[in-house]
Amino acid sequence: MDQLLSQLEQHAQEMISIRRYLHERPELSFQEVHTPEYIANYLSELGIEVRTGVGGNGVVGTIKGGLPGKTVALRADFDALPLHDEKDVPYRSKVDGAMHACGHDAHTATLLITAKVLQQNREHLKGNVVLIHQFGEEVAPGGAKPMIEDGCLDGVDAIFGTHLWSTIPVGKIGYNAGPIMAAADKFEVTIQGKGGHGASPHETVDSIMLGTNYIQWLQQIVSRRINPLSPAVITVGSFHAGDAFNIIADRASIVGTVRTFDEGTQEFIIKEMETFLNALCSGSGASYEFKYDKGYPAVINHIAETAHLVSCAKDLFGDDVFELEPMMGGEDFSHYLNEVPGTFFFTGAGNPEKNAIYPHHHPKFDIDEDAMMNAAKVLLSASVSYLDKAASTTEAAVQKS
Amino acid sequence: MDQLLSQLEQHAQEMISIRRYLHERPELSFQEVHTPEYIANYLSELGIEVRTGVGGNGVVGTIKGGLPGKTVALRADFDALPLHDEKDVPYRSKVDGAMHACGHDAHTATLLITAKVLQQNREHLKGNVVLIHQFGEEVAPGGAKPMIEDGCLDGVDAIFGTHLWSTIPVGKIGYNAGPIMAAADKFEVTIQGKGGHGASPHETVDSIMLGTNYIQWLQQIVSRRINPLSPAVITVGSFHAGDAFNIIADRASIVGTVRTFDEGTQEFIIKEMETFLNALCSGSGASYEFKYDKGYPAVINHIAETAHLVSCAKDLFGDDVFELEPMMGGEDFSHYLNEVPGTFFFTGAGNPEKNAIYPHHHPKFDIDEDAMMNAAKVLLSASVSYLDKAASTTEAAVQKS
Amino acid sequence: MDQLLSQLEQHAQEMISIRRYLHERPELSFQEVHTPEYIANYLSELGIEVRTGVGGNGVVGTIKGGLPGKTVALRADFDALPLHDEKDVPYRSKVDGAMHACGHDAHTATLLITAKVLQQNREHLKGNVVLIHQFGEEVAPGGAKPMIEDGCLDGVDAIFGTHLWSTIPVGKIGYNAGPIMAAADKFEVTIQGKGGHGASPHETVDSIMLGTNYIQWLQQIVSRRINPLSPAVITVGSFHAGDAFNIIADRASIVGTVRTFDEGTQEFIIKEMETFLNALCSGSGASYEFKYDKGYPAVINHIAETAHLVSCAKDLFGDDVFELEPMMGGEDFSHYLNEVPGTFFFTGAGNPEKNAIYPHHHPKFDIDEDAMMNAAKVLLSASVSYLDKAASTTEAAVQKS
Amino acid sequence: MDQLLSQLEQHAQEMISIRRYLHERPELSFQEVHTPEYIANYLSELGIEVRTGVGGNGVVGTIKGGLPGKTVALRADFDALPLHDEKDVPYRSKVDGAMHACGHDAHTATLLITAKVLQQNREHLKGNVVLIHQFGEEVAPGGAKPMIEDGCLDGVDAIFGTHLWSTIPVGKIGYNAGPIMAAADKFEVTIQGKGGHGASPHETVDSIMLGTNYIQWLQQIVSRRINPLSPAVITVGSFHAGDAFNIIADRASIVGTVRTFDEGTQEFIIKEMETFLNALCSGSGASYEFKYDKGYPAVINHIAETAHLVSCAKDLFGDDVFELEPMMGGEDFSHYLNEVPGTFFFTGAGNPEKNAIYPHHHPKFDIDEDAMMNAAKVLLSASVSYLDKAASTTEAAVQKS
Repeated sequence: MDQLLSQLEQHAQEMISIRRYLHERPELSFQEVHTPEYIANYLSELGIEVRTGVGGNGVVGTIKGGLPGKTVALRADFDALPLHDEKDVPYRSKVDGAMHACGHDAHTATLLITAKVLQQNREHLKGNVVLIHQFGEEVAPGGAKPMIEDGCLDGVDAIFGTHLWSTIPVGKIGYNAGPIMAAADKFEVTIQGKGGHGASPHETVDSIMLGTNYIQWLQQIVSRRINPLSPAVITVGSFHAGDAFNIIADRASIVGTVRTFDEGTQEFIIKEMETFLNALCSGSGASYEFKYDKGYPAVINHIAETAHLVSCAKDLFGDDVFELEPMMGGEDFSHYLNEVPGTFFFTGAGNPEKNAIYPHHHPKFDIDEDAMMNAAKVLLSASVSYLDKAASTTEAAVQKS
Repeated sequence: MDQLLSQLEQHAQEMISIRRYLHERPELSFQEVHTPEYIANYLSELGIEVRTGVGGNGVVGTIKGGLPGKTVALRADFDALPLHDEKDVPYRSKVDGAMHACGHDAHTATLLITAKVLQQNREHLKGNVVLIHQFGEEVAPGGAKPMIEDGCLDGVDAIFGTHLWSTIPVGKIGYNAGPIMAAADKFEVTIQGKGGHGASPHETVDSIMLGTNYIQWLQQIVSRRINPLSPAVITVGSFHAGDAFNIIADRASIVGTVRTFDEGTQEFIIKEMETFLNALCSGSGASYEFKYDKGYPAVINHIAETAHLVSCAKDLFGDDVFELEPMMGGEDFSHYLNEVPGTFFFTGAGNPEKNAIYPHHHPKFDIDEDAMMNAAKVLLSASVSYLDKAASTTEAAVQKS
Repeated sequence: MDQLLSQLEQHAQEMISIRRYLHERPELSFQEVHTPEYIANYLSELGIEVRTGVGGNGVVGTIKGGLPGKTVALRADFDALPLHDEKDVPYRSKVDGAMHACGHDAHTATLLITAKVLQQNREHLKGNVVLIHQFGEEVAPGGAKPMIEDGCLDGVDAIFGTHLWSTIPVGKIGYNAGPIMAAADKFEVTIQGKGGHGASPHETVDSIMLGTNYIQWLQQIVSRRINPLSPAVITVGSFHAGDAFNIIADRASIVGTVRTFDEGTQEFIIKEMETFLNALCSGSGASYEFKYDKGYPAVINHIAETAHLVSCAKDLFGDDVFELEPMMGGEDFSHYLNEVPGTFFFTGAGNPEKNAIYPHHHPKFDIDEDAMMNAAKVLLSASVSYLDKAASTTEAAVQKS
Repeated sequence: MDQLLSQLEQHAQEMISIRRYLHERPELSFQEVHTPEYIANYLSELGIEVRTGVGGNGVVGTIKGGLPGKTVALRADFDALPLHDEKDVPYRSKVDGAMHACGHDAHTATLLITAKVLQQNREHLKGNVVLIHQFGEEVAPGGAKPMIEDGCLDGVDAIFGTHLWSTIPVGKIGYNAGPIMAAADKFEVTIQGKGGHGASPHETVDSIMLGTNYIQWLQQIVSRRINPLSPAVITVGSFHAGDAFNIIADRASIVGTVRTFDEGTQEFIIKEMETFLNALCSGSGASYEFKYDKGYPAVINHIAETAHLVSCAKDLFGDDVFELEPMMGGEDFSHYLNEVPGTFFFTGAGNPEKNAIYPHHHPKFDIDEDAMMNAAKVLLSASVSYLDKAASTTEAAVQKS
C-alpha cells in the first residue's frame, strides 16, 4: 500500500493541472459535453475500458484486476453551477455564468489520478475497480439514477465516494456510519380563509389563526407521529399573512423545509402534513393548497463499509479522522447506496492561507488543492484493501472447507 | 312637541344649505378655523350665548329656557378628513386634500337648525340646552376631552348625540342601552429570536414558533382571562416573518387590534398581553418589543337616557327604531358619557337613490340629506321631553312633600 | 300607589305564615299535589278566577281589572328540592328528603299576598293581572314550557318575576336590562386513540395530545368563532387520561360546561365543538364520543320593561336598586321572556342576623322573610303602574287622533 | 477458534444445570449473597483469580493469558426480580417473591462456561479476560457504577456484554453500532392554579388550560429545541385534573417519561421543561412542582467494537445477525461503555415450542436455554479474536518500525 500511495504522490502536480483545466471549463448540469469527453479520453489513454453516454452524459471506466475477486466502485461527479466566478486566480472560469463552485472539478481530478495508479498496478489487483464519473449532480433528479439504470453498478459489490468540503479544514476526514446527508425537501402551504373586519372574527375564517394551529400541529408530527429513531425536522421558514392591523387576513402563506433520513419517514410526514391540513381546513370552512417538492433521498452509509473506510483513513490520517454530524444538504450518492453497500465521506478542503474559506455555491468558493491528494489516498487505500480483505476471506473460506 | 317638529321642518332647506356650505369648506381635525367661526356667528345671530375657543377650537352655545329646570346637552362634531373628494356633485369639497367624508358637516347643520327651533321656543323650555360643537373628533386624543376640561359639561344633567350613518337606511334610528361603540386599540409585537439553518432548529430561537405560541395564548386571554360578560376581541391582523423556506426566521412581527367595552378589561388585556409575552420570551431566550396604542374609550350608553331616547324616537319613527349591535369604530363621545348620563344613537343616512352608498371615510361618501331632519327631530324631541319629564318629576316631588 | 303599598304591609304577617306553612310541606318538582291545591284554594277564596292543572301541576289565576287595559303576568314557582332540611327552626321541613332550599315557598307567599291586594283593588285596575304559579322549575325541562303551551300567557302583554336571593343583602333589588341568567349546558367528550409504549409515540394515537389540541381549539371557538357581543364560556372542568407514566393513554375524557346568552350562539358552539372534534379525530386516526346536554335557555330581560321595573323599584328603594352582573345558573323564566316582553329581577334576601347566610341549594338555606314584602312591593308597583302607563298612552293616542 | 467453540459445546449440559440451579435460588437486587459466593467458588475452582465484594456484591475474575496482549472484559449480571414464579417447570423458583424473570441466571451460566473454556485455553490467550459478574442491575442506581469505582475496569481495553431476549427468536443476534438502549426517565409536574366556578374563568387560574399549554410546549422541545440527530421522546402518560363539569380545576397533574440517547440532550430537556414551566406559571399566576427522576444513561455502543462483534457473530450465525432498532428500557451497561469501548448486543432466546413466549418481567417468563450457547459462542469468539487482532496489529506495528 505504501508503494501505491507514493505513486499517487508523484502525480500531485498533474492532479492539480487537471483540476484547473476543468475549473476553467465548467459545464452546467445535464449540459456536460467536453468534460465527459475529456474524462473518457484520459481513461482510454490509460488503457482503461471506457463506456460513455452512460445514462446521459456519464462516463464509466472499468479497471480489470490481474487477480480474481470482487468489484469496488469509486464515484466522482463533474457538473458545475450557474454562477459567475468572482475569484481572482489564473484558473478562473472562462465560461460566463458557469463555475465549479462545489468542487466537482477536484472530485474528477482526484478520481482520474486514482484511476491512473490503480491501472498501473492492476496486475496485483484482486478484483476490479469501476470508475463512475457522474454528470448532473447539482440538479434534481440528478445523474446517479439514470447511470444506475444504465448499468453502472452492474457487478459492483461496494462503492466509495467523497466530497471535498471547504468548511472542514484540509487534512481532516469526516465519516458517519449511518445517515450523513439528509433528504431536504420544500413545502408551500396556503390557507385560504375568509377576511373581514378585525372586530368581527365570527364573520371570518381567520387564516392567521388557522396557520398557527397548523404550525403547532407540525410540531406534533415531529414529536409524536414519527419514529423518534428516524429523526426529522419540519421548519417553517416563512409565515406571511395580512396587511393591516384591523383587517382579518384571508390568506396565510407558510413555507418551509422537511429534513429526513429515510423514505418511510419522509412519505409519512408528507401524508400527515396534508391529512391534518385537510382536517383543519375542512373543520373550519377554509381551503388550502399544499405543494411539496422532494429533493434527493438521504445518504445513508453502511456500517461495515464505513468501518472499513475509517480504518483505512485512520492509518493515513490518525486522529484527523472524525465522526461527522450528518449534513442537511442533498446528494444523489444516496441512489448508489440504496443499491450496493458503501460509504460517502467528507474530505476537508478548507484553508484560510489558500483563500479556501468560502462556503460551497459561493462565487468566491475555492479549495486547498492538497485536499485532492488526501481524498485520492483514502479512495485508493479503501478500494485496494477492500479487494484484498475480500480475497483473503474467500481464501480462508476455501481453506476451511 | 308637534308644533316644534313642524317648525323644524320649515328649516329643512336651510339645514341642507348649511351642510353644503360646510361640505365645500372642510377643515382638518385640530386645524378648524372658519367652521367654528361660522357656527359661533350663526348661534350668536340667533341670540344664543356663545363661548368660542373651548378646549381649543370648540364652540359652546347655551339656550336658557324661560322656565326653571335641568340642563341637557346636544353635541355635534365638525372636523373633516384628509381625503380627496371624488364625488361629482355641486357641493363637492373646494379644499384639496380635505373632505367631509364622515358626515360631521351634516351633524353641525342638524344641531344649528335644532338650536334655532329651541331658541325660538325658549320661553317654554323647562331648563337649558347646551350646544356642544366639537372640533377634532377624527384624530386621537380628540376634542371632547379638552372641551370637557374647559367646562363644556358644567351644569349639564344629560347629553344626547347622534352619528349619521351611510350603511343604515335613511329613516331608521339605531340605539343600544349599553355599549354602542368599542374602544379600538392597536398593538405591535416584535419577537426577536435567533435565526439559523432550517435543519438545525436547536441552534436557533425560532421566532415563528414563538409567534404562534403567542397567538395561541392571545386566544386564551379572550376565552379564559377576561370576564365573559365584558366582551373583547383580540385580532392579529398581520403576521410576517422569514424570507426563505430553509432559514429559520429571527424576527416575527405580529400586529393587531384589541376591541373592548370597558377600561378595566382593556387595561387587563394590555397587562396580560405583555406579561405572557415576557414569560414566553424569557422562557425561550428571545426578546421582544411591545407597543400598544389606545384609541378612544368605548361609548357606553346609559340605560334610562337610552330608554328615554328610544321612547321619543319610537313616537317619531315607530318600528324603524331598532336595537343596533355595537359598532367597533371609535368615538370620543365616550368622554362625555363618562361624565354625565346620556346616549349616543345612529341615524340612518343611506340611500342608493341618492348615491349614499359608500362607507364612511370613502372618497365618494355621501348621505341622504333627509337624514338630518330625522336626527334633528329626535334630538329636539329627546331634549325637550327630557326637560319636561324632569320638571314634572320635580313638581310631583314638590307636591308630595 | 302608596295606598296599595300600605295595604300590602298590613298582610306582612300572613305572608310569613303562608311561607312557613309551605316551608314545612315541600313537594318535589313534578310531584306537586298539595301546594297547587293550597294556592288554588287561596286564590279562589279571594274571588279570583283560577285554572288548575295547567300544563301539569300549574295554577293560573286571573284578576280582571275594573277598567279596560292591558294584561300583565306575575310568576312564582313553587317546587322544592330533594334535600334534608338541616335548619333548626320551628318551620323546618316536615317531609324527609324534601326542602324549600331555593325560596320558592317565599315566591309563592309573595305572589299570593300581592294577588290579595290587587284583587282588593281590582275595580281601579286598568286591565288584568295573570298570576302564574309554576311547578317544576328545578328540574329540566321545567314547568314553564308546558304551562305556556297550555295557554298561561294567552293575552298577556308583559310579565314580571323575581327570585329571592340569599347572597344579596335584604333591601337590595338587582336588575339587568339584558341577559340576567345564562344557559348552562354540560358536555362530555371522549377521545379514543390507540395506547402503547411511552417510548414509541409513532405506534400510537396519543389521546392526551389530541385532548390538548381539542382544548386549545375550544378557546378559539370563544375567541374567534362566536360574535364577541354574544358572550360565552366554554370551561373544561375535568380532564382525565392515563394511568402510568410510561404508557401512552388510549382514551381521554374531557368534561365541561358551556354558558351562553342566546340560542344562536349556543347552537353554533355545539356545532363547532363537534365539527372540530370530528376533524381532529378524522385527521389523526382517533374516534370520539360527543355528548351535549342543554340546560334552560338564558334569561334575557327586555329593555323597556326592565327600565319600567327599575323606575318602580327606585321609587321604592332608591339607591339600593343596582345593576346586577348576569348570573350563570339556569331558570326557565327564559321561556316566558321568549314569548312576551318582561323582566326577571333579584330580590335581596340575605341577612347574617337572621341566619340567612347559606347559598341556595344548601341544607341550611334560609331567607330574611322581610325580603318577601320587598318583592311584593316591586311586583305590585310594577304591574299596577305598567297598566296605568299603558292606559294613559292609549288615551293620549286616542286624544291625538 | 473452531476448537474453542466445540469445547464450549461440550459444556452445554453444565451450562443448563448452572442456570437451573440459579433459577431455583433467585436473590433480589442488592441482597445477593449466595449467588456471588457460588460464582466465586466456581471461578476459583477453575483456577481463576477472583475478587469478591467488588463495589458491594460484585465478583470479578481475571483470566491471565499465556501471551502478552490487551485486556478484554465480559460482563454478566446476576440479580433477580421481586415476582412470584408462575411457571410450571422443575426448576421453578424456590424462593417466594423472587424470580429470575429477566434471564440474569442465564447470563451468569453463560459467562461461567465461557470462562471455563477460556481458562482451559489460557496459555494461547494473547492477553487477559476480565469476568465481571455484576449485582443489582434491576434497581437504580445499579451495581455497575460501584463496581467500576471499585476498579473492575482497571486495565480493561474493551468490554462485551449481552442480554438474552425472549421476544427475539433463538438463533438471532441483534446489534446496533450506536444507541441500543435509551435513558428512560420519569417526570411529575403539578400545576397549581386557582379553582372556581366554571362560568367565571376570569376569577380563576385554570390549571387544565395551563396543562394543555405545557403539553403543547413539550412537543416543541422535541421538535425545535433539541438536536434532531439526538432523538428524544417526551411522553405525557397521564393527565388528571378536576372532578366536576362546572368547576374550574385548581390543580393539574401531568406525569410522563423522557427517553434520550445522550446526556447532553437529557440535561437540556430537563432544563427546558422546567424553564418553560416556570415561565408559563409565572406568566399566569400559577405555581408548580417539578420532579424528575433519572433512570440509567443510554447504552451507546462503539462503532469499531460493534463492527468487530458483528463480524464474529456473522461468522457464527450468518444472516441471523441483524441490526436492531434501539430498545427503550434501561441498562446500567451504559456505565461501562462510558468508560471503555465496547458493545452490548441481544441474543435471541424466544421459542414458542419451549414456552419462551413471555416478555421480560412476566411471571411466566422463560427462555430457550439454547440461547446461552449462542451467547457464549459470540462472547468467546469476540473476546479471543479481539485479543488476537490487537496482538497482530501490535506485531505489524513492531515489524514496521
